[in-house]
Amino acid sequence: MDLVLVLKGRRDRRVSGIVDLARSRGVPVRFVDRARLEREGGGTVRGGVVARVAEKAYVPLESLVRPAGEPGRVILLDGVTDPHNAGAVIRSAAAFGIDGVVLAGPGAPPMGGALASAAAGQLERVPVARAGSAGDTLRVFRDAGYWVYGAAMEGTPIPLVQPSDRWVLALGSEGRGLRAKTRAFVDELVAVPMRPGVESLNVSVAAAILAYALTEASGRGHD
Amino acid sequence: MDLVLVLKGRRDRRVSGIVDLARSRGVPVRFVDRARLEREGGGTVRGGVVARVAEKAYVPLESLVRPAGEPGRVILLDGVTDPHNAGAVIRSAAAFGIDGVVLAGPGAPPMGGALASAAAGQLERVPVARAGSAGDTLRVFRDAGYWVYGAAMEGTPIPLVQPSDRWVLALGSEGRGLRAKTRAFVDELVAVPMRPGVESLNVSVAAAILAYALTEASGRGHD
Repeated sequence: MDLVLVLKGRRDRRVSGIVDLARSRGVPVRFVDRARLEREGGGTVRGGVVARVAEKAYVPLESLVRPAGEPGRVILLDGVTDPHNAGAVIRSAAAFGIDGVVLAGPGAPPMGGALASAAAGQLERVPVARAGSAGDTLRVFRDAGYWVYGAAMEGTPIPLVQPSDRWVLALGSEGRGLRAKTRAFVDELVAVPMRPGVESLNVSVAAAILAYALTEASGRGHD
Repeated sequence: MDLVLVLKGRRDRRVSGIVDLARSRGVPVRFVDRARLEREGGGTVRGGVVARVAEKAYVPLESLVRPAGEPGRVILLDGVTDPHNAGAVIRSAAAFGIDGVVLAGPGAPPMGGALASAAAGQLERVPVARAGSAGDTLRVFRDAGYWVYGAAMEGTPIPLVQPSDRWVLALGSEGRGLRAKTRAFVDELVAVPMRPGVESLNVSVAAAILAYALTEASGRGHD
């Protein structure tokens, strides 16, 4: 990260935390007016802060695979192209201590701009890998003993699921859901229980609830 | 709702559902190019659909109070000014069958534009009330026998909470959290368990997880 821009006069708890963190790592902080902030943020400014980052590097997929016998938790987004949603998922992944996030599919958003803004500074904490094919990715994890959960409305209600301690949670885009090719690599479809007739949750909300529920159920939520 | 605009060529499952719903209610649908769509959506287009709505009316606060003895569930946003977050909360409230959402505080966003877009068509399903003071609002619910949960990082981890069947869940803005004045009316602070050192979840994600957990724990998740 090369520069943090903060809206002049904005000095709430969250902003102060970001400023302190930046300074403690030797990252310069500049207080600017809204016009500058929005220019640098590409119109995606939320909460009065923009982190101008050198585009963050992806990690190799294999680095997200934990050694056999250890717990492992990964979120895979299959064809999610909206940078706000991808960034929000990364932010939640940080909150739950997920090992990493895989962005699969041709239209995955780049690791800066709106994605970085929605990730609210958590890009630094969560390794992100990029993959062309969700199916090939899931095969890697399955071969390493991971259980693959796929989000789908017709899946098992998540409170009823007894999770494995090595899992990948795969979610598709809001419009299309998981692609058929991806589903072929899913061990178990899971769903957030919803009132009948409601179409869907935002994908970042669904990811967060499913990851929360799996994390809690595997008793690793308070560690 | 007076008009639904859909990006030309966009015909996925979610869009088709919205188009069908609109037509079934006699709402005209027009297929337009991206420039028109973004103009009408005020730059907030997500998922290829804009619903141009006559600004939706708020409901009276009192209409959200269920008769004594009946279960009741309400989400109150205290000083949340971001329309994307407020809209996303309304969308999740629809998914969980929450009775209504209260937007409290001076900067609450209007019920159209970005809020309607983030609510993804669910504004029609969830009654929304507007209130000047979160404290006064919570007093109304407390007087009617509701238990007030307030979101705060230092709160009880939500999996440990045994919820009442009449509750209000109050959340503050991401920067400031619940105001001191609002906290005075909170019966119990609750938190999403997070990895130490992570600052916070997106407020719409936190609202969704807390509402999900309270709903599941009160055994009303699958009705």
